[in-house]
Amino acid sequence: MSEKDMDKIVSLCKRRGFIFPSSEIYGGLASTWDYGPLGAEFKRNLKDSWWKAVVHKRDDIEGLDAAILMHPKTWKASGHVDGFTDALVDCKNCKKRFRIDHLPGEGDFKKCPECKADINLKETPPRLFNLMLKTFLGPVEDEGAVSYLRPETAQGIFVNFLNVINSRHRKLPFGIAQIGKSFRNEITPGNFTFRTREFEQMEIEYFVSPEDSQQWYEKWVQERFEWYLNLGIKKEKLRLRVHAQNELAHYAKACTDIEYLFPFGWSELEGIANRGDFDLKQHADLSAKDLTYFDQAKNKRFLPYVIEPSGGVDRAALAFLVDAYREEEVNGTIRIVLGLDKKLIPYKVAVLPLLKNRADIVEMAKKICDSLKNKTVVKYDDTAAIGKLYRRQDEIGTLYCVTVDVQSLEDNRVTVRERDSMQQERIETSILEKYLTDKLA
Amino acid sequence: MSEKDMDKIVSLCKRRGFIFPSSEIYGGLASTWDYGPLGAEFKRNLKDSWWKAVVHKRDDIEGLDAAILMHPKTWKASGHVDGFTDALVDCKNCKKRFRIDHLPGEGDFKKCPECKADINLKETPPRLFNLMLKTFLGPVEDEGAVSYLRPETAQGIFVNFLNVINSRHRKLPFGIAQIGKSFRNEITPGNFTFRTREFEQMEIEYFVSPEDSQQWYEKWVQERFEWYLNLGIKKEKLRLRVHAQNELAHYAKACTDIEYLFPFGWSELEGIANRGDFDLKQHADLSAKDLTYFDQAKNKRFLPYVIEPSGGVDRAALAFLVDAYREEEVNGTIRIVLGLDKKLIPYKVAVLPLLKNRADIVEMAKKICDSLKNKTVVKYDDTAAIGKLYRRQDEIGTLYCVTVDVQSLEDNRVTVRERDSMQQERIETSILEKYLTDKLA
Repeated sequence: MSEKDMDKIVSLCKRRGFIFPSSEIYGGLASTWDYGPLGAEFKRNLKDSWWKAVVHKRDDIEGLDAAILMHPKTWKASGHVDGFTDALVDCKNCKKRFRIDHLPGEGDFKKCPECKADINLKETPPRLFNLMLKTFLGPVEDEGAVSYLRPETAQGIFVNFLNVINSRHRKLPFGIAQIGKSFRNEITPGNFTFRTREFEQMEIEYFVSPEDSQQWYEKWVQERFEWYLNLGIKKEKLRLRVHAQNELAHYAKACTDIEYLFPFGWSELEGIANRGDFDLKQHADLSAKDLTYFDQAKNKRFLPYVIEPSGGVDRAALAFLVDAYREEEVNGTIRIVLGLDKKLIPYKVAVLPLLKNRADIVEMAKKICDSLKNKTVVKYDDTAAIGKLYRRQDEIGTLYCVTVDVQSLEDNRVTVRERDSMQQERIETSILEKYLTDKLA
Repeated sequence: MSEKDMDKIVSLCKRRGFIFPSSEIYGGLASTWDYGPLGAEFKRNLKDSWWKAVVHKRDDIEGLDAAILMHPKTWKASGHVDGFTDALVDCKNCKKRFRIDHLPGEGDFKKCPECKADINLKETPPRLFNLMLKTFLGPVEDEGAVSYLRPETAQGIFVNFLNVINSRHRKLPFGIAQIGKSFRNEITPGNFTFRTREFEQMEIEYFVSPEDSQQWYEKWVQERFEWYLNLGIKKEKLRLRVHAQNELAHYAKACTDIEYLFPFGWSELEGIANRGDFDLKQHADLSAKDLTYFDQAKNKRFLPYVIEPSGGVDRAALAFLVDAYREEEVNGTIRIVLGLDKKLIPYKVAVLPLLKNRADIVEMAKKICDSLKNKTVVKYDDTAAIGKLYRRQDEIGTLYCVTVDVQSLEDNRVTVRERDSMQQERIETSILEKYLTDKLA
């Protein structure tokens, strides 16, 4: 899939109701996106698949859903107040502000990318700009009321470390998993939903004994890599990139990114890091709370190390969409198919009446649709002729189309069409539910 | 349940991992709460129940997941920039700020509730304070960069009205449903999770022909009332309160609240309003986009009316928790039970080894637990003796406890204990999965 093909994804997302530009009737809000009817279902399925895999299927991980607003000291401890910054330079001529690493020019002499005026860094030195979104809580807008929208969900986990240990009687190793919105005032967002100021994360903090940390780190790199493969991402489009020593944060012991080959190049979906005891230590220091763990078997008290698999929900969603998109020639026309895994598709089944002006056919189709609703996500659709409906369902990834026709009224059989093969089978309505649930299991 | 009993709910929530004070190690952040492992599961189930009922089980509603950040003109159109305000008064003596309706005193002469100084409203007149949380997008913190955290999810639906109609080929009547976070800078938050600055909403905007609006309004009041009852809320604790004419916003045709009898009194869980064409008209005016709908059957173009069932997720969660909490005397001790509906309970089944130092029992218990994980949400627990484990599972609402004992190793039968009756049955492991899934269906 080429760079150009990214436009096809954006277009499909708009046309079929996956992703719309936010506040579009007002000209949009830069790099902010709304998930439409199909996108909302798809993203729910993606998050559910993660939650089931990491929280429900395991006995060593607890879920959490912490607030976006947190005590400002959290961000002091985490290092975000002091260190989560970009160096920005003002152009004296046009008054615009730029990231210093985006300015053309040499040494201290740069040129404004907007108005082309000269920028002398000795005259207008770069200033550090914090990337956290700021707000004010309470009735007075002053420094004391400043609060931040979390730039990562991880800290909600660290500040609840004791609460989870105590309420859930946990022993090492164990993890805490969370899905939620985070905000960063990115100066250069872009590439559709890949980099946005508002985004959703799925993060695990997995607490271990220091001596076990390398082993758990390696285990989690594998676990997370396989999660993407198990949901159908093409293996040749997915790779691991181990961070070099000079790329690592000063406290990090190791870090590996899971990258996907987007039309705009290899880009990070998720990072798995061995963060040592940095986070718990920082919070213990600033809060003056004892966050150590007592290991009864070893009769030893210590700060656990943490392995952090941190993924972006929107990035994963975009990767799965790009990966699943395909065009095929069928009888001289192009068929677009969203070949998503059955766990991720918005609608598992569509029920279509062959003739929407035949009351008896419509009634039978709606009855079948209703009877399937207890078992799977199924939608009735009569908004076009059957050929068009099939193509629309292909574009949104629906795995099975059930069509009711005149013959169905007589023989109680319906046509079941499979998305990828386009094979059609006549199935008796009495066994339809079992037929479909077996296929979808 | 009395006012005093609210403390028991708060205590249980902390003790068992449902709800923690946010950033607690830093002394907390006023009226901000984190959902712990049990709360995260419970809230997920609550939201899923709503989503399934309004989006999956119906063919007339589409889902949506719009961004929290929206174009500022949205809030101009909705009336929030100009009208979403509290009148606040400053005390000249102690410099604190208060809502005017919270000041004791007569006419223009009030007294500061904090320092008891006199406040003369002629000298310090009240000023309007907007309740939207403000932030700045982009690298410059000036008026042009001001953005708001949405104070309601509803507007994300209205600005996407055309996108949904066009991508989903919708005809009236149809609705758009959304679950998501909203923020309000409440001056007096309180009552645990009932009124908080960050909260989650579940809102439907249901678009209808003006002449059908009263009928749909009545239908939705019933639908939504029954949703709470179907999930097990006690009927005598739930009531409808029809708004008097003088309570209605100027554009509203009618409004009914669904109220629950909390320990702190009857309070609103959800409002169902007939908002006329106010919202679409405002957005059409400010965006200069045509938001009218053409009714082919009637050959008529008009702005649809909207019926809005708007509920609070955190309020519903609190109501279900309060409603389900009960204490019973069992053999002279108090048993606490969270009698939540099976759809809402965090864990459906717990698997417990009678003796956790018997490797063969533990192995069998873990094997049973793993085998059930594909079918339901099940947790292995060996963190205490069996009596204590039963009581803990009762407190978090787990419907079935499966206990593996010495006898199980020989006869392949396990003890299944039901939460409410405490009845125990010996069940063969070969039919255990079917036994439990039938009960939980």
